[in-house]
Amino acid sequence: MKINGKTFVVTGGASGLGLETSRHLRSLGANIFIMDMNEENGRKVVEELGSDKTMFSSVDITLEDSVKLSLEHCLKKFKEIHGVINCAGVAAAQRVIKRDGQVHPLDLFTRVVMVNLIGTFNVIRLVADIIHNQNQPSSKDGGEEEEEKGVFIMTASVAAFEGQVGQSAYSASKSGVVGMTLPMAREFATLKIRINTIAPGTFETPMVEMLPQAAIKSINESIPFPSRMGKPKEFAFLCQHLIENTYINGEVIRLDGALRLSKL
Amino acid sequence: MKINGKTFVVTGGASGLGLETSRHLRSLGANIFIMDMNEENGRKVVEELGSDKTMFSSVDITLEDSVKLSLEHCLKKFKEIHGVINCAGVAAAQRVIKRDGQVHPLDLFTRVVMVNLIGTFNVIRLVADIIHNQNQPSSKDGGEEEEEKGVFIMTASVAAFEGQVGQSAYSASKSGVVGMTLPMAREFATLKIRINTIAPGTFETPMVEMLPQAAIKSINESIPFPSRMGKPKEFAFLCQHLIENTYINGEVIRLDGALRLSKL
Amino acid sequence: MKINGKTFVVTGGASGLGLETSRHLRSLGANIFIMDMNEENGRKVVEELGSDKTMFSSVDITLEDSVKLSLEHCLKKFKEIHGVINCAGVAAAQRVIKRDGQVHPLDLFTRVVMVNLIGTFNVIRLVADIIHNQNQPSSKDGGEEEEEKGVFIMTASVAAFEGQVGQSAYSASKSGVVGMTLPMAREFATLKIRINTIAPGTFETPMVEMLPQAAIKSINESIPFPSRMGKPKEFAFLCQHLIENTYINGEVIRLDGALRLSKL
Amino acid sequence: MKINGKTFVVTGGASGLGLETSRHLRSLGANIFIMDMNEENGRKVVEELGSDKTMFSSVDITLEDSVKLSLEHCLKKFKEIHGVINCAGVAAAQRVIKRDGQVHPLDLFTRVVMVNLIGTFNVIRLVADIIHNQNQPSSKDGGEEEEEKGVFIMTASVAAFEGQVGQSAYSASKSGVVGMTLPMAREFATLKIRINTIAPGTFETPMVEMLPQAAIKSINESIPFPSRMGKPKEFAFLCQHLIENTYINGEVIRLDGALRLSKL
Ligand SMILES: NC(=O)c1ccc[n+]([C@@H]2O[C@H](COP(=O)([O-])OP(=O)(O)OC[C@H]3O[C@@H](n4cnc5c(N)ncnc54)[C@H](O)[C@@H]3O)[C@@H](O)[C@H]2O)c1
Ligand SMILES: NC(=O)c1ccc[n+]([C@@H]2O[C@H](COP(=O)([O-])OP(=O)(O)OC[C@H]3O[C@@H](n4cnc5c(N)ncnc54)[C@H](O)[C@@H]3O)[C@@H](O)[C@H]2O)c1
Ligand SMILES: NC(=O)c1ccc[n+]([C@@H]2O[C@H](COP(=O)([O-])OP(=O)(O)OC[C@H]3O[C@@H](n4cnc5c(N)ncnc54)[C@H](O)[C@@H]3O)[C@@H](O)[C@H]2O)c1
Ligand SMILES: NC(=O)c1ccc[n+]([C@@H]2O[C@H](COP(=O)([O-])OP(=O)(O)OC[C@H]3O[C@@H](n4cnc5c(N)ncnc54)[C@H](O)[C@@H]3O)[C@@H](O)[C@H]2O)c1
Repeated sequence: MKINGKTFVVTGGASGLGLETSRHLRSLGANIFIMDMNEENGRKVVEELGSDKTMFSSVDITLEDSVKLSLEHCLKKFKEIHGVINCAGVAAAQRVIKRDGQVHPLDLFTRVVMVNLIGTFNVIRLVADIIHNQNQPSSKDGGEEEEEKGVFIMTASVAAFEGQVGQSAYSASKSGVVGMTLPMAREFATLKIRINTIAPGTFETPMVEMLPQAAIKSINESIPFPSRMGKPKEFAFLCQHLIENTYINGEVIRLDGALRLSKL
Repeated sequence: MKINGKTFVVTGGASGLGLETSRHLRSLGANIFIMDMNEENGRKVVEELGSDKTMFSSVDITLEDSVKLSLEHCLKKFKEIHGVINCAGVAAAQRVIKRDGQVHPLDLFTRVVMVNLIGTFNVIRLVADIIHNQNQPSSKDGGEEEEEKGVFIMTASVAAFEGQVGQSAYSASKSGVVGMTLPMAREFATLKIRINTIAPGTFETPMVEMLPQAAIKSINESIPFPSRMGKPKEFAFLCQHLIENTYINGEVIRLDGALRLSKL
Repeated sequence: MKINGKTFVVTGGASGLGLETSRHLRSLGANIFIMDMNEENGRKVVEELGSDKTMFSSVDITLEDSVKLSLEHCLKKFKEIHGVINCAGVAAAQRVIKRDGQVHPLDLFTRVVMVNLIGTFNVIRLVADIIHNQNQPSSKDGGEEEEEKGVFIMTASVAAFEGQVGQSAYSASKSGVVGMTLPMAREFATLKIRINTIAPGTFETPMVEMLPQAAIKSINESIPFPSRMGKPKEFAFLCQHLIENTYINGEVIRLDGALRLSKL
Repeated sequence: MKINGKTFVVTGGASGLGLETSRHLRSLGANIFIMDMNEENGRKVVEELGSDKTMFSSVDITLEDSVKLSLEHCLKKFKEIHGVINCAGVAAAQRVIKRDGQVHPLDLFTRVVMVNLIGTFNVIRLVADIIHNQNQPSSKDGGEEEEEKGVFIMTASVAAFEGQVGQSAYSASKSGVVGMTLPMAREFATLKIRINTIAPGTFETPMVEMLPQAAIKSINESIPFPSRMGKPKEFAFLCQHLIENTYINGEVIRLDGALRLSKL
């Protein structure tokens, strides 16, 4: 799908990977509709990118009505939607049984799964419905391109594959995202919508700055090459490719400098 | 771990794979504690296997207190717990966007994830706590065996890997289980507890009888060899091996007659 | 398939994993036909297990005629063949570009692939031909079992998935084995033959004793639980299960104490 | 790595995926050095792309001396090398046991592995040596980029993951490529070289036109979306991204329209 002139919902677009992706797609001519809980940051992004082709909506992606209402605002402004970059997510690091004997609260597990997995699904199902009902295959680009109607990108994590101690909840939520990629790609095929997932390694974003310093250091040292954290623009760049390359579908791509998370 | 004389919690043990595993482990000398929502079936199992070494507890695995209370009953009767076979689960088949345009209800997605993923985690974290606090490595079997304190088996599905149209929720819940296997194995290593997951293909159980006939037929024809559904005793037999073979840990095993779920 | 009374070819059966598997299957009543290049060890095994139901044949599995002739001897003695446990293999540890600048000899790469991958295929194709042409489904066990005609087990390695520095050749050879598991399972379905692969972590065998001490130590420390090398009998025990559990097919099973090979 | 002004070796560059990648990288300003056995096609490509920045060398990638000599010619013309796109490969479709009873010739298996796996390794090891010994990190692009010295791309196939009946040899060779990706990425990290693999589904190239018509049809119907074969330029486009996105390393990317090869 060609990006220029299309409209993308970016969840979690007020910070980190989502923010950089919003900047990047905007720079390529897309309209950006940011769904995020962080109002302060959200407003800043619109200031930065210009309210002309960027809009922020204060949304909790886990809430049905909140997302629905928000999408109505999006349609009012941009008329059509052509895809979602799902970046909204929360991290968590807690052992099932902590050294002091405390058991992992069920609530914490539920919250992580609710945001990362169920919230992601919530936004996709509602946008898929909108795209499906848009009359014209909007992405028909001068006959050159497939008649694609939409493109979704989900964000998992390498923790989906080699979760570390303390990542049961996070790994569960992210591998859930990995696992629903293919069944959704298969179903969306008839809707002419593609869906792929990026599994980032460790990236320089506010989320990672929240991890214990020791964890960050140990992770960084284990990144083969480039032996540094990922830069959000590298994530945004892969998003661009996933939108533009019509033949990638139902795939999960690690973006991690050859990192494999080891036993801590 | 040697099975004779050990106590295993079997969730979903009142039907299908869990029921057959209860029978099998009981026949190998284990105490069986069944957690299931189906009281009628639960009572029948105890009748069949004898209330001496089998106990049924009416539990919704998604509820914190329900599982806690139930485990107290288990400990009262059997004194110790050595593992969990997590078979409780629910299926669901619904498109994200149905042909009639109906959008996948968020509740349905949440319910499937709640039972299959969060419920599984709920039982494991509470039993891990109990096993961790049992004084003696109960599984020291005459010096021959590792000092294993516990063994967990989770049940995913091949839909975790190649989910079909209509399986977004189910695939998400089951791949979540797949993804939390390794981080839990890594963490439980210091507790001397192993954890593995079985990903069944299609088995002759009440759950599968609920699927549309067309789906069953199409699936069956795609099973290479043996070209029939799995028998619950084959699942139970693999559970036995996973308990007995001390060196299998953090692994997910497909049990499917070489089936790969195709695009429907 | 029931093991008692059946005949299994065990390649590499004169040492390590193959030797222990030969012992184990013999103890369960199988006839054992060992193909190995190591004559001295081969003779010792026959002495140990008794020439009644055990036979050794000096074979290089990469050679077409050597294997063919050997199988004729096997059939002469045991009349039928019901499976192969492929354990013959060689290790290699060499960087593509060594620190002193030396480039990986092409011959070394070719030799490793020749033995581990091509040699494995060579034996399987010739035995599949024999099994296919045996008149009676020999494994029909009193009507209880599938009419299985044969079972193959290949030996890969966790290096197939997370090969370390210096393992290009070894990883290539072993992931080749992993990748041909499913197409062979699919094809052999009509022959009523199952085929699975075991991917061992690090086991106490002569092969591992050849590795640099530093590598062994680093690997061992990274094994979560049990935090020791695997015992060959644990491998043999999984072979038994793979023969006996009719529903496992086309699968690759890691047997590694939750090890994931990290960047060295 | 920025592409303009860099030199890439493209094996198999005289046809299909390699040819289109040569065209594409040339159009982005790269020097192209094609290694291929097909002289006729090779000459045509140079005619098409211009002998100024394109060179063809008649090479069998499985032969040590042939590749070495060829690389000397490359260096003479272009001074430096910055990467390899490995597209040279051969297909093969033969059952282990044909319906008429014929057994898969060992030679055929060996030949497929020799070209696809060992030939790929042969070129990479020799080019890695050259890149390693080039004095300046040639890819330092105005301080903006990592000091990357090289980028390798290998071509596997989705048959590495779900090989079909008749693909034992091909699957083995391609999964071998998949498996050596990570150990090479880990090792090449210190050389500042990245390596990734593309696993194409079915593409419109001469290789696929050689398959039995029935196989092509059955494959095409099973491609979800876009439900057509891949276009070589989509492959070339992904190659471009893998060269340009510095943070992708050690990864294998399916490019297949969500295809999963089913049991035939
Ligand atoms: N940064 C990394 O290293 C890394 C690694 C792997 C995966 N990821 C994933 O990438 C995604 C982006 O991460 P990031 O590093 O940019 O994090 P971030 O914390 O910088 O940004 C996440 C954004 O999501 C928003 N958000 C959280 N919950 C929300 C909700 N319920 N509704 C709406 N908005 C919500 C937050 O307000 C925030 O703006 C996450 O899904 C994360 O799990 C990040
Ligand atoms: N049967 C198959 O083909 C198949 C295939 C793949 C995976 N599985 C999985 O195997 C497991 C067992 O499946 P089955 O076929 O035996 O199904 P089943 O329906 O026969 O048995 C499942 C049991 O779980 C119980 N259960 C459901 N929700 C519960 C809850 N919240 N709390 C307590 N108990 C609850 C039910 O009462 C039932 O007795 C499930 O997790 C299923 O997803 C089954
Ligand atoms: N030991 C481990 O930690 C480990 C780990 C992963 C995988 N493996 C694999 O397990 C298999 C068995 O390994 P092991 O540790 O028992 O090794 P081992 O060296 O003890 O035994 C291998 C046997 O294979 C035989 N052999 C080698 N090349 C042969 C040929 N061309 N023809 C016939 N026989 C040949 C040798 O003579 C030897 O007896 C190998 O394939 C190995 O790659 C071993
Ligand atoms: N086309 C597809 O659908 C598809 C699918 C999956 C993978 N692939 C892989 O992609 C790669 C390119 O395939 P293609 O479709 O472009 O095939 P192609 O047949 O059009 O081109 C392959 C080229 O490799 C050359 N070649 C073969 N053996 C060689 C050798 N020993 N030395 C030097 N050159 C040699 C041939 O001369 C030919 O020009 C192959 O590795 C193939 O296995 C292709």
